[in-house]
Amino acid sequence: MTAPYELIYYAGAPGRGEHVRLILEEAGTPYQDTQSLPFEKSRETVVTWLSGGGHGNPPYFAPPLFKHGDLVISQTPNILLYLGPKLGLAGDRENDLYRVNALVLTALDGLSNEVHDTHHPISTMLYYEDQREESKRRSKEFIQNRLPLILSYWQKVLDASSQERGEGPWLLGKTFTYADLVLFQCLDGTNYAFPKAMRQARDSGKFDKVFGLWEAVRARPNVSAYLSSDRRQKYTEWGVYRHYENNDFTAE
Amino acid sequence: MTAPYELIYYAGAPGRGEHVRLILEEAGTPYQDTQSLPFEKSRETVVTWLSGGGHGNPPYFAPPLFKHGDLVISQTPNILLYLGPKLGLAGDRENDLYRVNALVLTALDGLSNEVHDTHHPISTMLYYEDQREESKRRSKEFIQNRLPLILSYWQKVLDASSQERGEGPWLLGKTFTYADLVLFQCLDGTNYAFPKAMRQARDSGKFDKVFGLWEAVRARPNVSAYLSSDRRQKYTEWGVYRHYENNDFTAE
Repeated sequence: MTAPYELIYYAGAPGRGEHVRLILEEAGTPYQDTQSLPFEKSRETVVTWLSGGGHGNPPYFAPPLFKHGDLVISQTPNILLYLGPKLGLAGDRENDLYRVNALVLTALDGLSNEVHDTHHPISTMLYYEDQREESKRRSKEFIQNRLPLILSYWQKVLDASSQERGEGPWLLGKTFTYADLVLFQCLDGTNYAFPKAMRQARDSGKFDKVFGLWEAVRARPNVSAYLSSDRRQKYTEWGVYRHYENNDFTAE
Repeated sequence: MTAPYELIYYAGAPGRGEHVRLILEEAGTPYQDTQSLPFEKSRETVVTWLSGGGHGNPPYFAPPLFKHGDLVISQTPNILLYLGPKLGLAGDRENDLYRVNALVLTALDGLSNEVHDTHHPISTMLYYEDQREESKRRSKEFIQNRLPLILSYWQKVLDASSQERGEGPWLLGKTFTYADLVLFQCLDGTNYAFPKAMRQARDSGKFDKVFGLWEAVRARPNVSAYLSSDRRQKYTEWGVYRHYENNDFTAE
């Protein structure tokens, strides 16, 4: 009997743990998830594991954590790197894993970390309410200058990859990988945070392949079934992606 | 004849490319480096490669890029992941690579990205001078609340690892890995940016193992020879790590 896959993350919001859920759901692989615990109990479990879990492990800085038998690892892109090849979702050519990992890191930089920081530009240890003015300014700058640059980058990757790796809606052309799942979740969360700007970007027609990937991932049978299940949690006011009216602009 | 290792990065500041240089220097491996080009020429080379280099590669979002024969990859932790096992610097147990990669990602999050964002809290596409007040506030918060938390985390990792993996100054106890090089560079850059806060942290005695690692890496023969060579570039006013008097505080 093989050891189960176990995701250790706070219940109550998709958060960074969502990237781990999506790769497991796409692969149709059973896993345990602390989100099935009551909120407070999930927090206690996370805190226990962050300190090493009392099992001789080193401490971890932040969740998600991922447990597979005796192995406990942290960092979202690192967990995906571990799972990708095992689940057959890391490409099919030599060194594809490094390409997929780079795409994942770039997606998380631009459409997860940067979007997170729009509501916490001064410190993650202060409340949003304590950095509300800076948050508004950062959101405006993000929407005006960063978002078009980032979406344009992904459009170029999709253009180039179809030429190089065979026509297809994915970041490696016709070859679907876990980088597509990550970019999907990043776009989906950014859309929750900035619906006006994302609608404007979509309507511009300039990023048709990017929004096409978002739709194509959502339409995959296992992803689609997952998204309509109660395992898919709603975005909330404390997650990575937050919607504040005060920050919801269009670009000029 | 094997293909050479080639680092593609802007000349004139250590930047993110420095992590790649350090692993190659520690291993005593020859490599080519665009920092040997004149400043403007190095920029042109980076820009050409970012767009795919005209060689059928996909575009990359940001340097450093790393070329090894036909392979071109981006993202600092990804380049290190590629090189670490080849250079024998990714640990000696099954799955050590995932532990090392997680430590690297955590070091870059807290002591590279967060420190960078102290001088660019609103947008990387504005000048520092256009976000000077927010930068001061973010620096204060970082020094007061984040830096002690981050240093304390690394102290705990070093405590736990020595118990688990054999007494030693490294993040895996007695086993030296490229995560130690990354943490060294992160501490070194943070010290350049915030000398008052780092001096205070050092003098507190609470982070003796962290500052011990910094010294121990610096004392390694190949690292030491590199740091005193003219290949080691100086920190400048436009790099990841910047020193502004306006941001140079101690914690209260």
